[in-house]
Order: sequence, then C-alpha cells, then structure tokens
Amino acid sequence: MPADEFEIIRTLFAPLATHAGARGLDDDAAVLESVGRLVITTDAIVEGVHFLPDDPIDTIAKKALRVNLSDLAAKGAKPTAALLTLIWPHHRPAAQIADFARGLGEDLRRYDVALIGGDTTATPGPLTISITAFGEPMGGRTPSRADARPGEDVWLTGPIGDAYLGLMALREGAHEQAELIARYRLPNPRVDCAGLVAECARAAMDVSDGLVIDAGKLARASNAGTRLELERVPISPAARSWMEGRAAAIDLVSGGDDYEILFTASPNERAKLESAGMYRIGNIAEGSEAVLVDANGRRLEPAHSGHVHKLGN
Amino acid sequence: MPADEFEIIRTLFAPLATHAGARGLDDDAAVLESVGRLVITTDAIVEGVHFLPDDPIDTIAKKALRVNLSDLAAKGAKPTAALLTLIWPHHRPAAQIADFARGLGEDLRRYDVALIGGDTTATPGPLTISITAFGEPMGGRTPSRADARPGEDVWLTGPIGDAYLGLMALREGAHEQAELIARYRLPNPRVDCAGLVAECARAAMDVSDGLVIDAGKLARASNAGTRLELERVPISPAARSWMEGRAAAIDLVSGGDDYEILFTASPNERAKLESAGMYRIGNIAEGSEAVLVDANGRRLEPAHSGHVHKLGN
Repeated sequence: MPADEFEIIRTLFAPLATHAGARGLDDDAAVLESVGRLVITTDAIVEGVHFLPDDPIDTIAKKALRVNLSDLAAKGAKPTAALLTLIWPHHRPAAQIADFARGLGEDLRRYDVALIGGDTTATPGPLTISITAFGEPMGGRTPSRADARPGEDVWLTGPIGDAYLGLMALREGAHEQAELIARYRLPNPRVDCAGLVAECARAAMDVSDGLVIDAGKLARASNAGTRLELERVPISPAARSWMEGRAAAIDLVSGGDDYEILFTASPNERAKLESAGMYRIGNIAEGSEAVLVDANGRRLEPAHSGHVHKLGN
Repeated sequence: MPADEFEIIRTLFAPLATHAGARGLDDDAAVLESVGRLVITTDAIVEGVHFLPDDPIDTIAKKALRVNLSDLAAKGAKPTAALLTLIWPHHRPAAQIADFARGLGEDLRRYDVALIGGDTTATPGPLTISITAFGEPMGGRTPSRADARPGEDVWLTGPIGDAYLGLMALREGAHEQAELIARYRLPNPRVDCAGLVAECARAAMDVSDGLVIDAGKLARASNAGTRLELERVPISPAARSWMEGRAAAIDLVSGGDDYEILFTASPNERAKLESAGMYRIGNIAEGSEAVLVDANGRRLEPAHSGHVHKLGN
C-alpha cells in the first residue's frame, strides 16, 4: 500500500519536529534564529553504496544522521538542528517508513538535535537519504582541514577498522561478529570529543573514506606532509580478535566508515590529550608526502589507500 | 571515463565557491556568519520524477537551484547561499558534469547565491540532486502557510500552466513549443517578488504541486477554507494559443511545476498589489472547504487536484 508524502510527513515526521522554527513541517522553509557562526554540513547516503539493501531501516536512518553529526564533531561544533531529505524507492514497502521515523526520532532525542525541515519524494532508484546538519561552535575557532602545520602531532579519537571488518563479516555471513557489524551499520559520531577538538585541535576532519587517504587530504589541504606510524593506530579488541588470517592492520587503515576524528595539535597539548584518552599516531611534516611507516620507520604501502567514488562513465 | 569525486570537486565546483565560509569546498563543513533569522529550505529533484532523462544537463542544474530559490522568494527572503548534493548515476557520462557545473555557475551568479558546500557521490540509480538554500528575510515577518485568515484576498504572482503544457509538448514531440518547454525545464523563481511578499503577504507558498492542491494546503494549514475563481487565474499567451483542443483552464490549475507565488493579503493592499501586476484570484473563507468556482459561482471539480508523491509499495 503506497502512502502519500503529505500523510507521511504529517503522521510520522511532524511529531519529531518540535522546534518552533520547524513550523510543524507544514511549510516549505524553516526559520533558524542564529547569532554568530553556524557550522553547516551535508552528507547523503545511498543504498548499495553507503549501506546494504538489507540493513535494518532504523539503523539506516540513524547512520544518515550520524555521518553528519560526525562532521560537526570534527569541526568542534555541538549539533543543534537538521533537515531530512528522504528519497524513497517505488519498490520498498512504505510500511518501513514508520520504522525509519522511529529510528531517526530515537537519535534526534539522543543527540538533542531539532528536526527543522526537509523534503520527501519518490524514486525509481535506490533509497537515498540526504541530511543537512547545523551546529554551534564550542570554541573560538572552527578547525578546517587546511590548518595543520609541520611539527604538530596527529591524533585520533578512537580505534580504526571496526566498520571495515563489520562489512567483511556481513559479506562472509559471520553474523556472530555483532559488535563489528553494529559499527558498520551504526557509526558512533564522536560528539563527546567536540569540546576537546574545539579547544586543542589545529586541523581536524572525521575519518570516513579511510585513515590513510583522509590524513593525506588533511595534509594536502594544509600544504604539508604527514607521517603516520601504523603500530600506533589503535585497533579495538573485537577487531583484533577477529582479524587473524583475514586482515592486517594495514588493511584497516584503508577501510572506510570509521567516523573517528583525526586532528592535529601542538606538542604542548600532549599531556591533556593523552589524559583524555586520545591516540597520538604520527605528525605533520614539511613537504607534501603522506607516509605510513612501521615500528622501524620503514615505509609501508597499503594496497588501497581508501574509498573514492568514481562518478559516471 | 569515470572521474573521481575529489578531482570533480576541485576542478569543477570549487571555482564556483568563492564565499569565505565555503572554505574552497576543501572541508567537510561550511561556516556561515549569521545575525538574526535565517530562512532555510531544501528540495531534491530526481531523474524521471522531476525532470526527464534527456533534459539538457545545464537546465537540470538550474532547475535544482531554482526550485529552492522559489521557496525562499515565497517566504519573502533574499537568497544568499546554497549547498549542493550531487548524486551521479554510474551510467551517465562523467563528461556531462562540466556542463552541469557551468549551468549551476551561471545561475549562482545570476541570483547572487554563494555555493558554500555539499556532497558528491555515485549511485546505481537515477541522477538525483538535493539543494539546501539559505535566505535573509526582506521584511519583519517570514510568512508561513498557516498565517491566512478569512476575509483575506488570494493572490498569484503570474500565469499558471505553462510548465504543464511544456511537459505535454515534450511528450507529444511538439518541439516548436519552445517557450512552454523552457518553462517546464527552467522555472522562473519569483525572486523579484520577494520584497513585495515580505511587505504585504500574510500567508504564502510557491505553487509547485498544482494551484488547487497547493491553495488547499495553505488553507488547511491556516484552519480556513479557500475559494478560487477559475476565470481570474492568469494564463500566458503562449499557453492560451496552444491549449485549444488539448487542455482547458481546469487542467492547468491541477498541473505542477508553476513556481509562481500564491499568497494572501488584507483587502487594504489591493491597490498596491494590483499596480505591482499581481493577480487576485479568490479569497480565504471561513470553514475548511477549498472550492474552485466558475464565473457564475458554480463549483468546479478538477479531475486531478495536483501532484502527490506516492511513497513505496
């Protein structure tokens, strides 16, 4: 039974939109009162590209929001509001939209984000969700990718590779690897680290396409080089116990979907960042080379550096 | 030859993003300095749903932006900035992206809109473009759909039905109807009327799904009824000359893609709005009925009231 877009907005999404500026989703625009700087990010996820067709619909809704919250956290911003664009396939049951809305609602409450608007439309193609999220800076600066300088340390907020292994587990049918699979389906945006990033980070970004390629992007944007030490890259206990014979640490640093924050900071911040549980994994160097080294300083080359979308033919 | 997303952003879209807050599109978030109210809207267009697969790619880019500028104009807001999410099909030539960017760039300059960010990804499905646009209120109020009161006049900024006939002309292969086809492919967002809307309108929205259905939505949001007089609805000379034997005025008021502004105003504003070239087409009434009447006050029933997306199966 297909459902009409207005009925869906009225019954499923409007109840989530309690912010006055959302106008009950019964308008074509939202009104945001803003004083000063607003940090804005937008990320879309596409079925078959960013999630699997049989991923649970409530975790798909949450992933769509969380990839955006991750970008805000990496800019040292506290999330405040979001717009949802839901592009629903003709061939997916409309009944799933209620579960989509329930999942989204759970995360809006969890992260205290106001749904202020959006768009709902049909498509002959795959389920596609685009979210635009707004945040308030938690510090005086909004660190960009381009702010790194030689001599700064490179830090990471948490372990790398869980989501990559989770996707591998799904493909192998290894459903007992629930912890890793959950990390693929449901990123953990480091909103808890946004304040620390705002306080200490010079350059920052979230790791979504793969640690090595993303570190290279940060260094290139800063007109600098980077040197990462593979042995210092943290790997979770769940990942380590399932990796043997399947993947090496070097595969994990080129997998995607980590959603930890990669940032640089002055060596003066080491004590504070270490006591906050951050992982120091390398440094920013002169030049333009992005280098990965082993414990003996020998250069390593990942087979793939990370995920890059090829567009069109 | 598929092109990589970062190369496309760097070479084609970054040159369009000259606003400081855009950070050269070399970051995951934009920073907008804002004082006071920000009007925000988002609309997506999908190949095969909102445009035809063989529409020119530069007009597709412009349509994606213009449908959003239309929403801002209907809220009495001047457009300032936009985010572009481009979801490009595997099977569409990547070479078209340059023409897409050229078309978008022409319209960004034409409407003085700063491109401040976005997302670029691949899809196995249809070309899908989602834009989020930002505007500054031109008056003290941002009229919503829900602000209409009985006794107010209902106004329209321009003729209805050109885009509906343009789509019909494309389907019939009547390519000599260039003016109507152009109106389907390339809406004319009434940014020129935003100041007047901010000054005089009580409730306002743009007409995108069809005049009758959209007037009904405005009245329902306002807990009121509406009475539209079909003979007062303006129809362009190009439309009138091609309609004969094909379509009647009543078909035009249920066609979509008009992108004129529908608004209500106090009868005190009649002289000002008439001298500004606005069309008075009816009034807001007590109750909850949305009625379309002929010159003798007889009630008319369009075969279809307008466009509603059915979602899923």
